[in-house]
Amino acid sequence: MLNNNDILREPPYDFEIEKIVDVILRGGYKKILIQMPDGLKIYSKYIRDEIVKRVGNVEIVFSGDSAWGSCLLDDVEATRGGYDLLVHIGHIEYPYYKSSHRTLFIPAYSRLSISEDLISKLFDALDLYKINSVGVVSTIQHIKLLPEILKVLSTRYKVFKGSGLGAVMGCEYSSAIAISRYVDAYVIISGGVFHGLGLGLSVLGKPVIKLDPYESRVVDLTKEIDKILRIRIHKIHEASEARNWVLIDGVKGQNRSWFRRYLEQLIKSRGGDYIVYVSENITKDLLINIDSSWVDAYIILACPRIPIDDLYDFYKPVLTPAEARMILTGKKDRYYFPW
Amino acid sequence: MLNNNDILREPPYDFEIEKIVDVILRGGYKKILIQMPDGLKIYSKYIRDEIVKRVGNVEIVFSGDSAWGSCLLDDVEATRGGYDLLVHIGHIEYPYYKSSHRTLFIPAYSRLSISEDLISKLFDALDLYKINSVGVVSTIQHIKLLPEILKVLSTRYKVFKGSGLGAVMGCEYSSAIAISRYVDAYVIISGGVFHGLGLGLSVLGKPVIKLDPYESRVVDLTKEIDKILRIRIHKIHEASEARNWVLIDGVKGQNRSWFRRYLEQLIKSRGGDYIVYVSENITKDLLINIDSSWVDAYIILACPRIPIDDLYDFYKPVLTPAEARMILTGKKDRYYFPW
Repeated sequence: MLNNNDILREPPYDFEIEKIVDVILRGGYKKILIQMPDGLKIYSKYIRDEIVKRVGNVEIVFSGDSAWGSCLLDDVEATRGGYDLLVHIGHIEYPYYKSSHRTLFIPAYSRLSISEDLISKLFDALDLYKINSVGVVSTIQHIKLLPEILKVLSTRYKVFKGSGLGAVMGCEYSSAIAISRYVDAYVIISGGVFHGLGLGLSVLGKPVIKLDPYESRVVDLTKEIDKILRIRIHKIHEASEARNWVLIDGVKGQNRSWFRRYLEQLIKSRGGDYIVYVSENITKDLLINIDSSWVDAYIILACPRIPIDDLYDFYKPVLTPAEARMILTGKKDRYYFPW
Repeated sequence: MLNNNDILREPPYDFEIEKIVDVILRGGYKKILIQMPDGLKIYSKYIRDEIVKRVGNVEIVFSGDSAWGSCLLDDVEATRGGYDLLVHIGHIEYPYYKSSHRTLFIPAYSRLSISEDLISKLFDALDLYKINSVGVVSTIQHIKLLPEILKVLSTRYKVFKGSGLGAVMGCEYSSAIAISRYVDAYVIISGGVFHGLGLGLSVLGKPVIKLDPYESRVVDLTKEIDKILRIRIHKIHEASEARNWVLIDGVKGQNRSWFRRYLEQLIKSRGGDYIVYVSENITKDLLINIDSSWVDAYIILACPRIPIDDLYDFYKPVLTPAEARMILTGKKDRYYFPW
């Protein structure tokens, strides 16, 4: 087991320092803003040191706000603070948000590998299902493991890599959905359960097995996905008679005013009412501050994971836009995630 | 006691609806962003209704992020979202941050009054001190009570209103400091203890009595201020040998890169090292994410209340800029707040 100091000297991620340095030197940049998810912030000194060692006189500042995804790019602060370059580490570019600033994306590829023992556990997990074909996707961190996993699975199954890079985000599973008709089950390479649960909601009905390089574990998420789906159906049921809504839209790549206006029209046409909030941080505290006896239900436009992962236990229903649409249009035959 | 529904029909604040409506109608504005502190968000439907009732076809959107002060004006989102007008309710303009957007400030004057009984308690509290003169300040909410309180106190004391409006903010006590040489003690009209504690740290050595219109209470904060001062002195002592620092700067009106550069130079000249963060939200979670064995101490440039009120119990010292300066310059003879 690595201890904290080993990790800080030799991080288990490839921060592509040479690439960052190359961009800085070619551009003659002097002032750099670096944004990373919370779990990578511990490497800020390492990254600063490695860049300064090679570039010399350059000002490195890190963004402290939570970077849940590249949807919340710190481009506004990069411009306001007069930075020459924004480096976003940990995600690839969000397809629906174009940076307003010069931005370099560094995915932070994991250096972790998959043991033979773990592969054998993966086969054990898949063996529990009667399946012929398996789709494989990954978070961007572990994308380099895809060829190996596809190869080893192909000894027993028909395998399909997710379309494009084969990468998924917490709210963006088009890569997995594209191969849905060909596969009986999915394997997702990722830490935590965040991406696996989102995948499950996007390809309902198919088993999802998580291959976790961090904990060296294989976890079948199928039952957990079913549990979450049942919670969501219950929330939709709870909100089905809602008349007065609070719509909370997001900022930057989480601003979906196009969808908000559509829901506003639906609410009006049913004789309901709504008030609108726009917020970068959407927490239980915000709902509590807004809440009154007038409010029947909430819709979070910003990020579909907020109602599902963070606000599912609020005492009034908090829905994703697609869930609200099911109620407001009456079309409840199919559950849609994310939108 | 008013119940929740009464409060929502007839709020205990003057939101100056007629003034807002007048500005909207004169400007022909169609899309308005309204920003308020968390405690006022419950009035969002009331405010929306009152404006729409008078203006008709106008889009009202509320900002959900915490508006601790007018230093964190939502001007960037007002511009990005294409709003015609930003209405900031609950604070007056922050003297060190100019809005980049068309902005109307509504202080939200309180409608609460002070009972004779409360006045008598105020005299009781002041009676415990041998004083001849009293300075009176208020948060902007209760500023309209100042003439009455000054008048009644003048029957027994020489009284001084804080300079200008007589209003203080959580980090801005120049109105109180300006009369410091003339007064033996202070009375502050405010809810909570936030403003009173800041006042005490700004005018060290003078008793501070809080007159609270919300709870109809008089509270002597002098001992609590002394306790906080002793905590701060202890933090300065704990950080006195710090070599490696994390500097966390803020955004908008909380960005103090001028002070940060000064501290950076001082750290370098003592042979120390630092990494720099810039963040709108500064919480214990952020410190935990950044923390490693390399870090000796933190300096929060953003808002001096964050180290004092929120992060005082972190396991490593978290200082205000002025506290860090005491260490880095060796000038420890006087405690400075806020800067």
